[in-house]
Amino acid sequence: MNNLLSLAEEKPVSFSRRLFLGSSLAAAVLPSLVRAEEAAPTSAATAFTPRHIPARELPVPTTVSPELQAVIGAPYSPGWNDIPQNATDWKDLAFKSAAGAANAIAAIKEHFGLQVEKTTMAGVPVFVITPQEIAPNNENRLLVHIHGGGFVLFPGEAGAGEGMMMAGYGKFRVVSIDYRMAPDFPFPAALDDVTAVWRVLLASYEPSKMGMFGTSAGGGLTLSAVLRAKSEGLSLPGAIAPGSPCADLTWSGDTANANAYVDNALISRSGWVGAATTLYAGAHDLRNPELSPIFGDFRNFPPAILTSGTRDLLLSDTVRTHRKLRQARVNAFLQVFEGESHAQFLTPFVPETEEAFGEIAHFFDVHLAS
Amino acid sequence: MNNLLSLAEEKPVSFSRRLFLGSSLAAAVLPSLVRAEEAAPTSAATAFTPRHIPARELPVPTTVSPELQAVIGAPYSPGWNDIPQNATDWKDLAFKSAAGAANAIAAIKEHFGLQVEKTTMAGVPVFVITPQEIAPNNENRLLVHIHGGGFVLFPGEAGAGEGMMMAGYGKFRVVSIDYRMAPDFPFPAALDDVTAVWRVLLASYEPSKMGMFGTSAGGGLTLSAVLRAKSEGLSLPGAIAPGSPCADLTWSGDTANANAYVDNALISRSGWVGAATTLYAGAHDLRNPELSPIFGDFRNFPPAILTSGTRDLLLSDTVRTHRKLRQARVNAFLQVFEGESHAQFLTPFVPETEEAFGEIAHFFDVHLAS
Repeated sequence: MNNLLSLAEEKPVSFSRRLFLGSSLAAAVLPSLVRAEEAAPTSAATAFTPRHIPARELPVPTTVSPELQAVIGAPYSPGWNDIPQNATDWKDLAFKSAAGAANAIAAIKEHFGLQVEKTTMAGVPVFVITPQEIAPNNENRLLVHIHGGGFVLFPGEAGAGEGMMMAGYGKFRVVSIDYRMAPDFPFPAALDDVTAVWRVLLASYEPSKMGMFGTSAGGGLTLSAVLRAKSEGLSLPGAIAPGSPCADLTWSGDTANANAYVDNALISRSGWVGAATTLYAGAHDLRNPELSPIFGDFRNFPPAILTSGTRDLLLSDTVRTHRKLRQARVNAFLQVFEGESHAQFLTPFVPETEEAFGEIAHFFDVHLAS
Repeated sequence: MNNLLSLAEEKPVSFSRRLFLGSSLAAAVLPSLVRAEEAAPTSAATAFTPRHIPARELPVPTTVSPELQAVIGAPYSPGWNDIPQNATDWKDLAFKSAAGAANAIAAIKEHFGLQVEKTTMAGVPVFVITPQEIAPNNENRLLVHIHGGGFVLFPGEAGAGEGMMMAGYGKFRVVSIDYRMAPDFPFPAALDDVTAVWRVLLASYEPSKMGMFGTSAGGGLTLSAVLRAKSEGLSLPGAIAPGSPCADLTWSGDTANANAYVDNALISRSGWVGAATTLYAGAHDLRNPELSPIFGDFRNFPPAILTSGTRDLLLSDTVRTHRKLRQARVNAFLQVFEGESHAQFLTPFVPETEEAFGEIAHFFDVHLAS
């Protein structure tokens, strides 16, 4: 190297952590290099004026498949901010969510030729999903699926669609947990049910050969289930795949604001989903890590893959979870899909969905014992 | 497993790829499962009405360090959309960008105690950056840095700040390339310069012990340089780290719209940055992979780590590059930082910056030969 160089002249410079803006023009073009002013360490957020974002027309991107363009281009449903006012209304919404998913569930089962058996484990209803072919590496493996739906929706088989796609795309056996939900059974019933099933499965499978996964509420519950297993001294799964996890029920993530009304799946926390997480949490401290795992201790977590989309209201929850796992030295991976709103990587029969499941299946194949 | 189950009743269902929406309410809560309508395979984008996004007030998130809150809370600079109208104005803007960065450059050098030597390789000016201590694993390694600035800004040492931070945080030797820029030297001058330096370095270093990295225009040039090396039959670097790459000069990525006026660094392609990429491209086809590497062939690329932020105007370019690398079976990693606009992971002396560089340094340490 040295033969390529002349000796550099040393120029001592005075060091200051408080850098000064050059010209306003330079600040426009180089904010990342010229802005390093120290902020007040306390109450910093209140010191800043919120940014005014003008109204805009957001086109459907041409950078995704035509099938996904149809999903991105779909309007908000008129019902997204009809918030149930009592337990009966919540249960009616849950019933409708299940009815609305029925055709998709049937199509997924048919497409992959899946065998789906309903049974119970530790008294908790589960669906055991068996694909037509189990991959040779997966013969002694099992994936545990925890469904999404804001801790209130998709009771029964309607919740198992993601588990079915994982079984089909990845050629894994999957157990999908039909956990108890709000309003009748708020926190911590869901987590108790997941943990009870986990205990049963530990009697039959080696933990290093089991993965755990789920999206949205199911992603949050996946993280919380690992925290609970740690605190109870249970063996942990060999790998986990929390998709766009509800990791922060205080809704402090930046994209809860930045992607509001951009995301056409959840739209805004002002709709049913914010009310659902409030209903689930009840009077519990929202910063309880079993409710909001982003506030938990991720040390010794198993390898993880996280999935989200650029328009996802919970993109921040996803990337904050990824960063916090990395800070805890966990072998954690992130994938983010172009233009997708919350949980749209689960849309059946869209090419990007096959890609997302392919990545997750590959991740489990690499990280689970066989 | 079978002992846990009763046999499931088989219920044949008719399969249809055209799934139907359940109720509008179900569509609101379960778009990802109930929306799988087939889209017309052609001209799909024109079939959709753009989504109207209402005006909003976007607060500064509390989920990041106070130092980063100050960066996120900073207003747009008044000069961001003053677009130079002729070559003299562009060069004046470049001069101001360099002047505006001078204090930060001096502080970075001082903070890390770096030795920075200016020399040339194949006639191209470069800065050779040597940290106070080279990590033992890095003794025979070299990182090649390609700076950002929209292919027009940060001439001279002003462009080397990212390379200096990499040298300091990662304890690597770094060569930062002061490539020719528009308006005097549009495409492909920059890529020619990078390739010329790469040829020189191949004579002194094993390619498997060299990494290449850069952000924004420098991220795009990193990808283009690998494409160029492939087409010229040159050895490829052992690993690359394109940060928030300008990978698509057609600006087709979704966040170019979705994060417009959310990103406070680039703000919108309607400002100087869109004009800069047009100036750089000249009359060349914008889909030329050496201009817009997203349209290139990523097979056989070296391992890569990509970095972006949730508010980044080029988040889509970043995640599309990540996906396309993965589709090409490249060992590619993604990290996305909460609340950060374009290239703000380079902000000096912010905790998240140290975290980002720590990840990239670790990535190079794992993937480069030593």
